[in-house]
Amino acid sequence: MPPPEELNRLRVVLVAPRNPLNIGAAARAMSNFGFQSLRLVNPFAPSFREARSAVGASEILANAVRYKSVAEAVEECTLVVGTTAVRNRDLQHLVRRPEYGARLIRRRLISSNVALLFGSEKFGLSNDALSHCHWLMRIPTCDENISMNLGQAVAVCLYELIRDSKQERAAEQWKPAAAEDLERITALLLEALQTSGFLNLRRVSDAEERIRRLVRRLRLPQRDSVIWLGMLRQMLWKMNQGKKS
Amino acid sequence: MPPPEELNRLRVVLVAPRNPLNIGAAARAMSNFGFQSLRLVNPFAPSFREARSAVGASEILANAVRYKSVAEAVEECTLVVGTTAVRNRDLQHLVRRPEYGARLIRRRLISSNVALLFGSEKFGLSNDALSHCHWLMRIPTCDENISMNLGQAVAVCLYELIRDSKQERAAEQWKPAAAEDLERITALLLEALQTSGFLNLRRVSDAEERIRRLVRRLRLPQRDSVIWLGMLRQMLWKMNQGKKS
Repeated sequence: MPPPEELNRLRVVLVAPRNPLNIGAAARAMSNFGFQSLRLVNPFAPSFREARSAVGASEILANAVRYKSVAEAVEECTLVVGTTAVRNRDLQHLVRRPEYGARLIRRRLISSNVALLFGSEKFGLSNDALSHCHWLMRIPTCDENISMNLGQAVAVCLYELIRDSKQERAAEQWKPAAAEDLERITALLLEALQTSGFLNLRRVSDAEERIRRLVRRLRLPQRDSVIWLGMLRQMLWKMNQGKKS
Repeated sequence: MPPPEELNRLRVVLVAPRNPLNIGAAARAMSNFGFQSLRLVNPFAPSFREARSAVGASEILANAVRYKSVAEAVEECTLVVGTTAVRNRDLQHLVRRPEYGARLIRRRLISSNVALLFGSEKFGLSNDALSHCHWLMRIPTCDENISMNLGQAVAVCLYELIRDSKQERAAEQWKPAAAEDLERITALLLEALQTSGFLNLRRVSDAEERIRRLVRRLRLPQRDSVIWLGMLRQMLWKMNQGKKS
Protein backbone atom coordinates (compact mmCIF):
# COMPACT_ATOMS: atom_id res chain seq x y z
CA MET A 1 0.00 0.00 0.00
CA PRO A 2 1.22 3.53 -0.71
CA PRO A 3 2.06 5.59 2.39
CA PRO A 4 -0.92 7.20 4.21
CA GLU A 5 0.04 10.78 3.34
CA GLU A 6 -0.28 9.87 -0.32
CA LEU A 7 -3.63 8.14 0.12
CA ASN A 8 -4.81 11.27 1.93
CA ARG A 9 -4.19 13.29 -1.21
CA LEU A 10 -6.95 11.49 -3.08
CA ARG A 11 -10.36 13.15 -3.06
CA VAL A 12 -13.17 10.72 -3.75
CA VAL A 13 -15.85 12.94 -5.26
CA LEU A 14 -19.41 11.65 -5.55
CA VAL A 15 -21.37 13.88 -7.88
CA ALA A 16 -25.11 14.05 -7.18
CA PRO A 17 -25.39 10.69 -5.42
CA ARG A 18 -28.94 9.75 -4.46
CA ASN A 19 -28.81 6.54 -2.43
CA PRO A 20 -27.61 6.81 1.18
CA LEU A 21 -26.50 3.18 1.10
CA ASN A 22 -24.18 3.97 -1.77
CA ILE A 23 -22.71 6.96 0.01
CA GLY A 24 -22.10 4.73 3.01
CA ALA A 25 -20.64 1.99 0.83
CA ALA A 26 -18.23 4.42 -0.81
CA ALA A 27 -17.08 5.57 2.63
CA ARG A 28 -16.66 1.99 3.76
CA ALA A 29 -14.48 1.05 0.80
CA MET A 30 -12.41 4.18 1.45
CA SER A 31 -11.86 3.12 5.02
CA ASN A 32 -10.96 -0.44 3.94
CA PHE A 33 -8.30 0.83 1.61
CA GLY A 34 -6.99 3.73 3.68
CA PHE A 35 -8.45 6.77 1.94
CA GLN A 36 -9.99 9.60 3.93
CA SER A 37 -11.15 12.54 1.92
CA LEU A 38 -14.74 12.19 0.72
CA ARG A 39 -16.45 15.04 -1.12
CA LEU A 40 -20.01 15.25 -2.29
CA VAL A 41 -21.25 17.59 -4.95
CA ASN A 42 -24.95 18.34 -4.58
CA PRO A 43 -25.90 15.11 -2.86
CA PHE A 44 -29.60 14.44 -2.43
CA ALA A 45 -29.91 16.08 1.00
CA PRO A 46 -32.02 13.49 2.84
CA SER A 47 -29.65 10.76 1.58
CA PHE A 48 -26.63 12.55 2.92
CA ARG A 49 -28.30 12.99 6.30
CA GLU A 50 -29.35 9.36 6.35
CA ALA A 51 -25.90 8.10 5.38
CA ARG A 52 -24.33 10.20 8.08
CA SER A 53 -26.68 9.02 10.78
CA ALA A 54 -26.44 5.34 9.84
CA VAL A 55 -25.19 2.91 12.46
CA GLY A 56 -21.46 2.55 12.23
CA ALA A 57 -21.10 5.59 9.99
CA SER A 58 -17.43 6.27 9.89
CA GLU A 59 -15.27 9.23 10.56
CA ILE A 60 -14.98 9.54 6.80
CA LEU A 61 -18.68 10.27 6.51
CA ALA A 62 -18.60 12.63 9.45
CA ASN A 63 -15.81 14.56 7.76
CA ALA A 64 -17.28 14.43 4.27
CA VAL A 65 -17.54 17.88 2.74
CA ARG A 66 -20.42 19.06 0.61
CA TYR A 67 -19.85 21.30 -2.43
CA LYS A 68 -22.15 23.16 -4.77
CA SER A 69 -20.11 22.56 -7.89
CA VAL A 70 -17.52 20.21 -9.29
CA ALA A 71 -15.21 23.19 -9.84
CA GLU A 72 -15.08 23.91 -6.11
CA ALA A 73 -14.72 20.27 -5.16
CA VAL A 74 -11.64 19.74 -7.31
CA GLU A 75 -10.04 23.15 -6.87
CA GLU A 76 -6.68 22.17 -5.38
CA CYS A 77 -6.27 19.03 -7.45
CA THR A 78 -3.75 18.84 -10.26
CA LEU A 79 -5.40 15.80 -11.79
CA VAL A 80 -9.13 15.22 -12.14
CA VAL A 81 -10.21 11.76 -13.28
CA GLY A 82 -13.78 10.82 -14.11
CA THR A 83 -15.26 7.35 -14.15
CA THR A 84 -17.64 6.09 -16.79
CA ALA A 85 -19.43 2.88 -17.65
CA VAL A 86 -19.78 3.74 -21.28
CA ARG A 87 -17.31 3.07 -24.03
CA ASN A 88 -16.66 6.09 -26.19
CA ARG A 89 -19.31 8.12 -24.46
CA ASP A 90 -17.37 11.15 -25.21
CA LEU A 91 -14.78 10.92 -27.88
CA GLN A 92 -13.13 14.02 -26.53
CA HIS A 93 -11.85 12.15 -23.51
CA LEU A 94 -9.16 9.61 -23.31
CA VAL A 95 -10.59 6.54 -21.56
CA ARG A 96 -8.11 4.45 -19.61
CA ARG A 97 -8.36 1.01 -18.08
CA PRO A 98 -8.11 1.08 -14.29
CA GLU A 99 -4.78 -0.72 -14.12
CA TYR A 100 -3.09 1.90 -16.24
CA GLY A 101 -5.08 4.86 -14.94
CA ALA A 102 -4.36 3.88 -11.35
CA ARG A 103 -0.66 3.91 -12.05
CA LEU A 104 -0.84 7.48 -13.29
CA ILE A 105 -2.96 8.52 -10.31
CA ARG A 106 -0.56 6.93 -7.85
CA ARG A 107 2.36 8.67 -9.41
CA ARG A 108 0.59 12.00 -9.10
CA LEU A 109 -0.40 11.37 -5.49
CA ILE A 110 3.27 11.32 -4.54
CA SER A 111 3.38 15.08 -4.87
CA SER A 112 -0.10 16.56 -5.26
CA ASN A 113 -3.85 16.11 -4.91
CA VAL A 114 -6.00 14.07 -7.27
CA ALA A 115 -9.79 13.97 -7.57
CA LEU A 116 -11.58 10.80 -8.63
CA LEU A 117 -15.15 11.53 -9.73
CA PHE A 118 -18.11 9.17 -9.64
CA GLY A 119 -21.42 10.20 -11.19
CA SER A 120 -24.94 9.66 -9.94
CA GLU A 121 -26.36 6.15 -9.88
CA LYS A 122 -28.75 6.82 -12.69
CA PHE A 123 -27.02 9.17 -15.06
CA GLY A 124 -23.31 8.94 -14.41
CA LEU A 125 -21.29 12.12 -14.76
CA SER A 126 -22.92 15.09 -16.48
CA ASN A 127 -21.23 16.85 -19.37
CA ASP A 128 -20.40 19.69 -17.05
CA ALA A 129 -18.72 17.34 -14.59
CA LEU A 130 -16.90 15.57 -17.42
CA SER A 131 -15.56 18.85 -18.72
CA HIS A 132 -13.52 19.21 -15.53
CA CYS A 133 -11.80 15.87 -16.08
CA HIS A 134 -8.41 15.35 -17.63
CA TRP A 135 -9.28 11.81 -18.62
CA LEU A 136 -11.64 8.99 -17.75
CA MET A 137 -11.32 5.56 -16.28
CA ARG A 138 -13.59 2.67 -17.24
CA ILE A 139 -13.84 -0.61 -15.38
CA PRO A 140 -14.06 -3.32 -18.04
CA THR A 141 -17.57 -4.78 -17.85
CA CYS A 142 -19.72 -7.01 -20.04
CA ASP A 143 -21.76 -5.48 -22.83
CA GLU A 144 -24.85 -7.14 -21.33
CA ASN A 145 -24.56 -5.19 -18.10
CA ILE A 146 -22.09 -2.35 -18.17
CA SER A 147 -23.53 -0.39 -15.27
CA MET A 148 -21.96 -1.09 -11.92
CA ASN A 149 -23.36 -0.35 -8.50
CA LEU A 150 -21.79 2.88 -7.23
CA GLY A 151 -20.37 1.40 -4.04
CA GLN A 152 -18.86 -1.51 -5.95
CA ALA A 153 -17.35 0.75 -8.59
CA VAL A 154 -15.73 2.85 -5.87
CA ALA A 155 -14.38 -0.32 -4.22
CA VAL A 156 -12.87 -1.63 -7.45
CA CYS A 157 -11.23 1.69 -8.35
CA LEU A 158 -9.76 2.18 -4.87
CA TYR A 159 -8.60 -1.41 -4.76
CA GLU A 160 -6.78 -0.85 -8.03
CA LEU A 161 -5.06 2.17 -6.47
CA ILE A 162 -3.63 0.22 -3.55
CA ARG A 163 -3.25 -3.06 -5.38
CA ASP A 164 0.21 -3.02 -6.83
CA SER A 165 2.85 -3.39 -4.22
CA LYS A 166 5.70 -2.90 -6.62
CA GLN A 167 4.81 0.51 -7.85
CA GLU A 168 7.28 2.70 -9.49
CA ARG A 169 7.72 5.47 -6.99
CA ALA A 170 9.36 7.99 -9.24
CA ALA A 171 7.56 11.26 -8.77
CA GLU A 172 6.80 13.11 -11.94
CA GLN A 173 9.34 15.72 -12.83
CA TRP A 174 6.92 18.42 -13.78
CA LYS A 175 4.47 20.18 -11.50
CA PRO A 176 1.03 20.31 -13.07
CA ALA A 177 -1.26 23.30 -12.67
CA ALA A 178 -4.09 22.91 -10.15
CA ALA A 179 -7.72 22.79 -11.21
CA GLU A 180 -8.40 26.30 -9.92
CA ASP A 181 -5.70 27.71 -12.18
CA LEU A 182 -7.07 25.81 -15.15
CA GLU A 183 -10.51 27.12 -14.32
CA ARG A 184 -9.20 30.69 -14.19
CA ILE A 185 -7.58 30.24 -17.58
CA THR A 186 -10.77 28.72 -18.93
CA ALA A 187 -12.82 31.69 -17.75
CA LEU A 188 -10.42 34.24 -19.24
CA LEU A 189 -10.14 32.34 -22.50
CA LEU A 190 -13.91 32.18 -22.76
CA GLU A 191 -14.15 35.91 -22.22
CA ALA A 192 -11.46 36.54 -24.81
CA LEU A 193 -13.18 34.29 -27.31
CA GLN A 194 -16.48 36.02 -26.77
CA THR A 195 -14.90 39.44 -27.08
CA SER A 196 -13.10 38.45 -30.25
CA GLY A 197 -16.30 37.13 -31.78
CA PHE A 198 -14.90 33.62 -32.09
CA LEU A 199 -17.65 32.03 -30.08
CA ASN A 200 -20.47 33.96 -31.69
CA LEU A 201 -19.23 32.80 -35.03
CA ARG A 202 -19.73 29.20 -34.09
CA ARG A 203 -22.86 29.54 -32.01
CA VAL A 204 -22.33 26.39 -30.04
CA SER A 205 -24.51 25.77 -27.04
CA ASP A 206 -21.94 23.92 -25.00
CA ALA A 207 -19.10 26.34 -25.66
CA GLU A 208 -18.09 26.56 -22.04
CA GLU A 209 -17.75 22.82 -21.63
CA ARG A 210 -15.85 22.52 -24.88
CA ILE A 211 -13.39 25.20 -23.89
CA ARG A 212 -12.99 23.69 -20.46
CA ARG A 213 -12.12 20.35 -21.99
CA LEU A 214 -9.77 21.96 -24.47
CA VAL A 215 -7.83 23.55 -21.62
CA ARG A 216 -7.76 20.29 -19.63
CA ARG A 217 -6.25 18.49 -22.59
CA LEU A 218 -3.23 20.75 -22.44
CA ARG A 219 -0.94 19.40 -19.83
CA LEU A 220 -0.32 22.82 -18.39
CA PRO A 221 2.61 23.09 -15.99
CA GLN A 222 1.99 24.99 -12.78
CA ARG A 223 4.78 27.49 -13.33
CA ASP A 224 3.32 28.49 -16.71
CA SER A 225 -0.20 29.24 -15.59
CA VAL A 226 0.63 32.77 -14.45
CA ILE A 227 2.12 33.68 -17.79
CA TRP A 228 -0.80 32.25 -19.75
CA LEU A 229 -3.18 34.21 -17.56
CA GLY A 230 -1.14 37.33 -18.16
CA MET A 231 -1.09 36.85 -21.91
CA LEU A 232 -4.83 36.31 -22.09
CA ARG A 233 -5.52 39.31 -19.87
CA GLN A 234 -3.40 41.51 -22.06
CA MET A 235 -5.05 40.36 -25.27
CA LEU A 236 -8.46 40.85 -23.72
CA TRP A 237 -7.52 44.35 -22.62
CA LYS A 238 -6.29 45.13 -26.11
CA MET A 239 -9.47 43.86 -27.73
CA ASN A 240 -11.55 45.97 -25.38
CA GLN A 241 -9.38 49.02 -26.10
CA GLY A 242 -10.37 48.75 -29.72
CA LYS A 243 -14.02 48.60 -28.81
CA LYS A 244 -13.89 51.79 -26.79
CA SER A 245 -11.90 53.85 -29.27
CA MET B 1 -11.70 -10.86 -20.49
CA PRO B 2 -11.47 -14.65 -20.47
CA PRO B 3 -13.92 -16.41 -22.84
CA PRO B 4 -17.50 -16.89 -21.52
CA GLU B 5 -17.26 -20.67 -21.24
CA GLU B 6 -14.42 -20.22 -18.79
CA LEU B 7 -16.23 -17.59 -16.75
CA ASN B 8 -19.18 -19.98 -16.57
CA ARG B 9 -17.01 -22.49 -14.78
CA LEU B 10 -16.69 -20.27 -11.74
CA ARG B 11 -19.15 -20.87 -8.90
CA VAL B 12 -19.60 -17.87 -6.66
CA VAL B 13 -20.62 -19.42 -3.35
CA LEU B 14 -22.13 -17.24 -0.62
CA VAL B 15 -22.10 -19.11 2.65
CA ALA B 16 -24.88 -18.13 5.07
CA PRO B 17 -25.45 -14.61 3.73
CA ARG B 18 -27.97 -12.63 5.73
CA ASN B 19 -28.57 -9.35 3.91
CA PRO B 20 -30.71 -9.47 0.75
CA LEU B 21 -28.99 -6.33 -0.55
CA ASN B 22 -25.66 -8.11 -0.40
CA ILE B 23 -27.00 -11.13 -2.25
CA GLY B 24 -28.32 -8.78 -4.91
CA ALA B 25 -25.03 -6.88 -5.02
CA ALA B 26 -23.06 -10.09 -5.49
CA ALA B 27 -25.33 -11.05 -8.38
CA ARG B 28 -24.94 -7.60 -9.91
CA ALA B 29 -21.16 -7.73 -9.82
CA MET B 30 -21.30 -11.19 -11.40
CA SER B 31 -23.40 -9.87 -14.21
CA ASN B 32 -21.08 -6.86 -14.68
CA PHE B 33 -18.08 -9.13 -15.07
CA GLY B 34 -19.71 -11.97 -17.01
CA PHE B 35 -20.08 -14.69 -14.39
CA GLN B 36 -23.29 -16.68 -14.10
CA SER B 37 -23.26 -19.41 -11.53
CA LEU B 38 -24.35 -18.24 -8.07
CA ARG B 39 -24.71 -20.70 -5.22
CA LEU B 40 -25.97 -20.06 -1.74
CA VAL B 41 -25.31 -22.27 1.23
CA ASN B 42 -27.96 -21.91 3.91
CA PRO B 43 -28.94 -18.36 3.11
CA PHE B 44 -31.25 -16.66 5.57
CA ALA B 45 -34.50 -17.67 3.84
CA PRO B 46 -36.40 -14.36 3.94
CA SER B 47 -33.34 -12.60 2.56
CA PHE B 48 -33.06 -14.97 -0.34
CA ARG B 49 -36.73 -14.46 -1.16
CA GLU B 50 -36.38 -10.72 -0.87
CA ALA B 51 -33.27 -10.60 -3.06
CA ARG B 52 -35.02 -12.69 -5.70
CA SER B 53 -38.11 -10.55 -5.75
CA ALA B 54 -36.22 -7.26 -5.84
CA VAL B 55 -36.82 -4.92 -8.76
CA GLY B 56 -34.36 -5.67 -11.51
CA ALA B 57 -33.33 -8.99 -9.98
CA SER B 58 -31.27 -10.65 -12.63
CA GLU B 59 -31.32 -14.00 -14.30
CA ILE B 60 -28.38 -14.86 -12.10
CA LEU B 61 -30.53 -14.55 -9.00
CA ALA B 62 -33.39 -16.43 -10.60
CA ASN B 63 -31.02 -19.27 -11.41
CA ALA B 64 -29.17 -19.20 -8.11
CA VAL B 65 -29.09 -22.60 -6.45
CA ARG B 66 -29.48 -23.22 -2.75
CA TYR B 67 -27.46 -25.87 -0.94
CA LYS B 68 -27.53 -27.25 2.55
CA SER B 69 -23.80 -27.65 2.88
CA VAL B 70 -20.57 -26.33 1.46
CA ALA B 71 -19.63 -29.87 0.50
CA GLU B 72 -22.57 -30.14 -1.88
CA ALA B 73 -22.11 -26.63 -3.25
CA VAL B 74 -18.52 -27.27 -4.34
CA GLU B 75 -18.90 -30.88 -5.37
CA GLU B 76 -17.79 -30.73 -9.00
CA CYS B 77 -15.08 -28.13 -8.48
CA THR B 78 -11.41 -29.05 -8.73
CA LEU B 79 -10.35 -25.94 -6.84
CA VAL B 80 -12.08 -24.36 -3.85
CA VAL B 81 -10.87 -20.95 -2.78
CA GLY B 82 -12.06 -19.17 0.36
CA THR B 83 -11.93 -15.46 1.03
CA THR B 84 -10.97 -13.95 4.34
CA ALA B 85 -10.44 -10.54 5.86
CA VAL B 86 -8.14 -11.79 8.54
CA ARG B 87 -4.42 -12.24 8.26
CA ASN B 88 -3.24 -15.64 9.48
CA ARG B 89 -6.66 -16.59 10.67
CA ASP B 90 -5.90 -20.14 10.04
CA LEU B 91 -2.30 -21.09 9.80
CA GLN B 92 -3.27 -24.27 8.04
CA HIS B 93 -4.15 -22.27 4.97
CA LEU B 94 -2.04 -20.51 2.50
CA VAL B 95 -3.34 -16.93 2.09
CA ARG B 96 -2.79 -15.38 -1.31
CA ARG B 97 -3.13 -11.84 -2.54
CA PRO B 98 -5.91 -11.52 -5.13
CA GLU B 99 -3.55 -10.76 -8.01
CA TYR B 100 -1.72 -14.06 -7.58
CA GLY B 101 -4.75 -16.05 -6.52
CA ALA B 102 -6.75 -14.83 -9.51
CA ARG B 103 -4.04 -15.99 -11.85
CA LEU B 104 -4.23 -19.52 -10.47
CA ILE B 105 -8.02 -19.51 -10.61
CA ARG B 106 -8.05 -18.31 -14.21
CA ARG B 107 -5.65 -21.03 -15.19
CA ARG B 108 -7.85 -23.64 -13.59
CA LEU B 109 -11.01 -22.30 -15.23
CA ILE B 110 -9.58 -23.13 -18.63
CA SER B 111 -10.32 -26.76 -17.99
CA SER B 112 -12.45 -27.24 -14.90
CA ASN B 113 -14.77 -25.73 -12.31
CA VAL B 114 -13.65 -23.53 -9.47
CA ALA B 115 -15.60 -22.39 -6.39
CA LEU B 116 -14.97 -19.03 -4.77
CA LEU B 117 -16.41 -18.86 -1.26
CA PHE B 118 -17.55 -15.78 0.63
CA GLY B 119 -18.58 -16.04 4.27
CA SER B 120 -21.42 -14.37 6.11
CA GLU B 121 -21.31 -10.62 6.70
CA LYS B 122 -20.78 -11.01 10.39
CA PHE B 123 -18.59 -14.04 10.87
CA GLY B 124 -16.86 -14.74 7.59
CA LEU B 125 -16.31 -18.36 6.67
CA SER B 126 -16.80 -20.93 9.40
CA ASN B 127 -14.11 -23.46 10.19
CA ASP B 128 -16.22 -26.06 8.46
CA ALA B 129 -16.41 -23.97 5.31
CA LEU B 130 -12.70 -23.19 5.48
CA SER B 131 -11.91 -26.86 5.70
CA HIS B 132 -13.21 -27.29 2.17
CA CYS B 133 -10.83 -24.73 0.77
CA HIS B 134 -7.52 -25.41 -0.93
CA TRP B 135 -6.25 -21.97 -0.08
CA LEU B 136 -7.52 -18.51 0.80
CA MET B 137 -7.51 -15.14 -0.85
CA ARG B 138 -7.31 -11.92 1.12
CA ILE B 139 -7.95 -8.48 -0.30
CA PRO B 140 -5.30 -6.18 1.18
CA THR B 141 -7.10 -3.81 3.55
CA CYS B 142 -6.05 -1.41 6.29
CA ASP B 143 -5.54 -2.69 9.79
CA GLU B 144 -8.00 -0.06 11.00
CA ASN B 145 -10.85 -1.55 9.00
CA ILE B 146 -10.19 -4.95 7.53
CA SER B 147 -13.77 -5.99 7.05
CA MET B 148 -15.21 -5.32 3.63
CA ASN B 149 -18.84 -5.16 2.64
CA LEU B 150 -19.79 -8.51 1.08
CA GLY B 151 -20.99 -7.07 -2.22
CA GLN B 152 -17.84 -4.97 -2.56
CA ALA B 153 -15.58 -7.90 -1.72
CA VAL B 154 -17.29 -9.99 -4.41
CA ALA B 155 -16.89 -7.14 -6.90
CA VAL B 156 -13.17 -6.74 -6.19
CA CYS B 157 -12.45 -10.48 -6.43
CA LEU B 158 -14.38 -10.90 -9.68
CA TYR B 159 -12.78 -7.79 -11.10
CA GLU B 160 -9.40 -9.28 -10.36
CA LEU B 161 -10.43 -12.40 -12.28
CA ILE B 162 -11.31 -10.54 -15.45
CA ARG B 163 -8.68 -7.86 -15.11
CA ASP B 164 -6.28 -8.20 -17.93
CA SER B 165 -3.00 -9.43 -16.67
CA LYS B 166 -1.40 -8.82 -20.01
CA GLN B 167 -1.15 -5.16 -19.05
CA GLU B 168 -1.37 -3.97 -22.63
CA ARG B 169 0.42 -0.86 -21.54
CA ALA B 170 -2.51 1.03 -22.95
CA ALA B 171 -0.53 2.42 -25.82
CA GLU B 172 -1.20 6.09 -25.40
CA GLN B 173 -4.27 6.72 -27.49
CA TRP B 174 -3.70 10.39 -28.01
CA LYS B 175 -1.93 11.79 -31.03
CA PRO B 176 0.35 14.65 -30.18
CA ALA B 177 0.48 17.66 -32.47
CA ALA B 178 3.36 17.71 -34.90
CA ALA B 179 6.19 20.22 -34.62
CA GLU B 180 4.95 22.19 -37.60
CA ASP B 181 1.60 22.75 -35.90
CA LEU B 182 3.32 23.83 -32.72
CA GLU B 183 5.46 26.21 -34.70
CA ARG B 184 2.42 27.70 -36.41
CA ILE B 185 0.80 28.23 -33.04
CA THR B 186 4.00 29.73 -31.69
CA ALA B 187 4.20 32.21 -34.54
CA LEU B 188 0.58 33.29 -34.21
CA LEU B 189 0.87 33.57 -30.45
CA LEU B 190 3.97 35.73 -30.81
CA GLU B 191 2.17 37.99 -33.21
CA ALA B 192 -0.82 38.21 -30.90
CA LEU B 193 1.40 39.01 -27.94
CA GLN B 194 3.18 41.72 -29.85
CA THR B 195 -0.06 43.21 -31.05
CA SER B 196 -1.52 43.18 -27.58
CA GLY B 197 1.54 44.89 -26.17
CA PHE B 198 2.32 41.99 -23.86
CA LEU B 199 5.80 41.47 -25.21
CA ASN B 200 6.74 45.13 -25.37
CA LEU B 201 5.81 45.49 -21.78
CA ARG B 202 8.33 42.94 -20.75
CA ARG B 203 11.09 43.79 -23.16
CA VAL B 204 12.69 40.40 -23.11
CA SER B 205 15.35 39.67 -25.65
CA ASP B 206 14.68 35.97 -26.02
CA ALA B 207 10.90 36.30 -26.23
CA GLU B 208 10.57 34.04 -29.21
CA GLU B 209 12.45 31.20 -27.60
CA ARG B 210 10.53 31.57 -24.39
CA ILE B 211 7.21 31.45 -26.16
CA ARG B 212 8.34 28.49 -28.21
CA ARG B 213 9.25 26.60 -25.06
CA LEU B 214 6.01 27.63 -23.42
CA VAL B 215 4.03 26.11 -26.28
CA ARG B 216 6.15 22.95 -26.24
CA ARG B 217 5.48 22.45 -22.57
CA LEU B 218 1.79 22.07 -23.35
CA ARG B 219 0.99 18.58 -24.37
CA LEU B 220 -1.10 19.73 -27.29
CA PRO B 221 -3.14 17.01 -29.00
CA GLN B 222 -3.01 17.01 -32.77
CA ARG B 223 -6.76 17.33 -33.22
CA ASP B 224 -6.83 20.48 -31.08
CA SER B 225 -4.21 22.42 -32.98
CA VAL B 226 -6.66 23.68 -35.60
CA ILE B 227 -8.97 25.14 -33.01
CA TRP B 228 -6.16 26.85 -31.12
CA LEU B 229 -4.92 28.35 -34.38
CA GLY B 230 -8.45 29.54 -35.13
CA MET B 231 -8.88 31.12 -31.73
CA LEU B 232 -5.59 32.97 -31.93
CA ARG B 233 -6.30 34.19 -35.44
CA GLN B 234 -9.65 35.55 -34.37
CA MET B 235 -8.24 37.37 -31.36
CA LEU B 236 -5.48 38.79 -33.50
CA TRP B 237 -8.00 39.99 -36.06
CA LYS B 238 -10.05 41.60 -33.31
CA MET B 239 -7.06 43.38 -31.84
CA ASN B 240 -6.13 44.75 -35.24
CA GLN B 241 -9.68 45.92 -35.83
CA GLY B 242 -9.32 48.14 -32.81
CA LYS B 243 -6.07 49.54 -34.09
CA LYS B 244 -7.56 50.59 -37.41
CA SER B 245 -10.71 52.14 -36.05
